[in-house]
Amino acid sequence: MDFKEELEKRVAYAEKVIYSYLPKEEGYQKKVIEAMNYSVKAGGKRLRPILMWETYQLFGGTVRETIEPFMAAIEMIHTYSLVHDDLPAMDNDEYRRGKKTTHVVYGEAMGILAGDGLLNFAFETACRSFSHNTDGDTTVEALQVLTRKPGIYGMLGGQVIDVESVNQEITMEKLEIIHKLKTSALIEASMMIGAILAGASEEEIKEIEFAARQIGLAFQIQDDILDVTSTMEVLGKPIHSDEKNNKTTYVTLIGLSKAKEQVADYTKQAMDIIKKSGRKNEFLERLIIELISRKK
Amino acid sequence: MDFKEELEKRVAYAEKVIYSYLPKEEGYQKKVIEAMNYSVKAGGKRLRPILMWETYQLFGGTVRETIEPFMAAIEMIHTYSLVHDDLPAMDNDEYRRGKKTTHVVYGEAMGILAGDGLLNFAFETACRSFSHNTDGDTTVEALQVLTRKPGIYGMLGGQVIDVESVNQEITMEKLEIIHKLKTSALIEASMMIGAILAGASEEEIKEIEFAARQIGLAFQIQDDILDVTSTMEVLGKPIHSDEKNNKTTYVTLIGLSKAKEQVADYTKQAMDIIKKSGRKNEFLERLIIELISRKK
Repeated sequence: MDFKEELEKRVAYAEKVIYSYLPKEEGYQKKVIEAMNYSVKAGGKRLRPILMWETYQLFGGTVRETIEPFMAAIEMIHTYSLVHDDLPAMDNDEYRRGKKTTHVVYGEAMGILAGDGLLNFAFETACRSFSHNTDGDTTVEALQVLTRKPGIYGMLGGQVIDVESVNQEITMEKLEIIHKLKTSALIEASMMIGAILAGASEEEIKEIEFAARQIGLAFQIQDDILDVTSTMEVLGKPIHSDEKNNKTTYVTLIGLSKAKEQVADYTKQAMDIIKKSGRKNEFLERLIIELISRKK
Repeated sequence: MDFKEELEKRVAYAEKVIYSYLPKEEGYQKKVIEAMNYSVKAGGKRLRPILMWETYQLFGGTVRETIEPFMAAIEMIHTYSLVHDDLPAMDNDEYRRGKKTTHVVYGEAMGILAGDGLLNFAFETACRSFSHNTDGDTTVEALQVLTRKPGIYGMLGGQVIDVESVNQEITMEKLEIIHKLKTSALIEASMMIGAILAGASEEEIKEIEFAARQIGLAFQIQDDILDVTSTMEVLGKPIHSDEKNNKTTYVTLIGLSKAKEQVADYTKQAMDIIKKSGRKNEFLERLIIELISRKK
C-alpha cells in the first residue's frame, strides 16, 4: 500500500463530503456563511471524518448517505472550536496553518457568530442522516454521541480546565483529564459514530471508545515529546515552546523515556482493539501508526 | 381566570423544568457550569418554554418527560444567544435585567465558553427526550426544528443581518426578515415543537408555524410602538431610544397608525389559528393577547 497516496484519496473524499454539506454563500446571511466556510476550507488533516469513515468501514458500513452528514458535522464542530479558541479573549491567534484566522479576516463579532453558526449547523447537518438511515435507532445513538462528546463533559470541558490551569500546578491526573477531554473526546466521537452507524454491538462500541481515547492520548504525548526531541526544521514550528511557556506536559511530569513508553503502551492497546479477530482495515491500522509515530 | 396567578404558575413550572436539566456545579468543569447556570437563572419571562408547553396542551399532549427536555433546551438556546449578544465584541452590555452579564462576572473567555456550552448542552438535553417518547419519529422531527430555527437560516441569521445593517438604510422587506429571524424563529420553534410532540398533523404544524411567526412580528412591532408612545415611568427604560439611535423601525417606516393596524392584523391571524375549531386553550389565547397589547 502506498500510504501517502491512499491518505490523499481519503482527504480528498472527506473534503468533498464536508464541502457538499456547507451552506451556500448567498442571501442576507451571506457574510456569516462566508466566514463559516472560510474557516472550514482553511485546511487541516480532516483526521476526524477520516477516522469516522474508516471505523465505519471496519465494521462493514456501506450506506454513504448515512455516515456522510456526520462526517461533515464532526469537522464543523472541530472547526468551531478552533475559531473560538483563536478569538482575542481566548488564545488571540492571528494565524492558523499559515492563514489569517477567521476573526482577523471577518472581525471579532463575525468570528463569534461564525463559530456559533458552525456548532449549530453541525447538529442541523447530522439530522439529515435520518432521511437516509432505515435504522433510525442508530442515528439517534450517533446523535447522542455527537451532542455529548464536544460539550461540557467532553471537548469544551477540557478547554475550560485548560484555560483555568494556566500558571497553576497540574497533576498527572489533571493533565490526563485535560487531554482526554480536549483531544480524545472528538476522536472518540468520530470512531464511535462510525461503529454505531455500521451496526456494531454495544460491547464493540465501548472497545472503540477506549481505543479512540488511547489514540488521542498517545497523539498528545507524542506532541509533547516532539517539542523536546525534534528540531525546528523538521517540526516547522519553534521547539522547546512548552518549557518556555512553563507548561506542564507528560515529559516534564514523567520524563522522556517514560513518556515514550506510554505512547507505545497506548498505541498497542488501541491497535489490539482495531486488529481484533474478525476486523480488518489495513489503512486504519497504518493511519494510527503514522499519527502516533510521526516526526512532526 | 386570574391571568396573573395562572402565569406565575406557568413560570414556576417552566423554571422547575429548566433547572432540573441544568448541569450540576461540580467537577473540574465547575466554573463554566456555574457561568452557564448563572445566565439561565438570571431571570426572564420563560416565554418560549411556556409557549411550547401551552401549544403541547392545545394539541392534547400528555407525556411530560417527552416535552420537558425540549422546554429546557429552548431556554438554553435563548440564553446562549443573550450571553453572546452581550459580549464586548457584540453589544458590549454590562447589565441585563438588572444583573451583571455573564462575561462581566466570569470574564470574557468564560462568557464565550458558557454560551458555547449552553448551545451544545441544549441539543444534548433535547436528545434525552428519545428515552421517553414511544413515537421516536416525532422526537426526530422536533429535533430537526430545534436545530434549524436557531441557526443561520433562523435566529443567528437575523442577528447577523442586524449586526451588518447598523448605519445602513433598511427597507421594509429587510426589517421584516430581521424580525422574522431574530424574534419569530425561536417562537416558531417553541410552538412547532409543542405541536409536533403532541402529534399534530403536518398541516396543523404549518399553521402553528405561521401563527408563531405573526406573534413574534406583532410583539416586535409593539416594542417599536411603545418606544414612541409610552413614558419612561411605565416602560422602565428610556423612550425614544430608536429615534436617538437613528434606528429604522416599523414606526419610522410606516408610521404609528399603520404600525398599530399591523399589530392588530397579525394578532388576529395568529388568534384565528389558535382558536380554530376543535382547539381550546384559554390561557394561551390570553397570554398572546397580553404579550401583544402590553404597555411595557
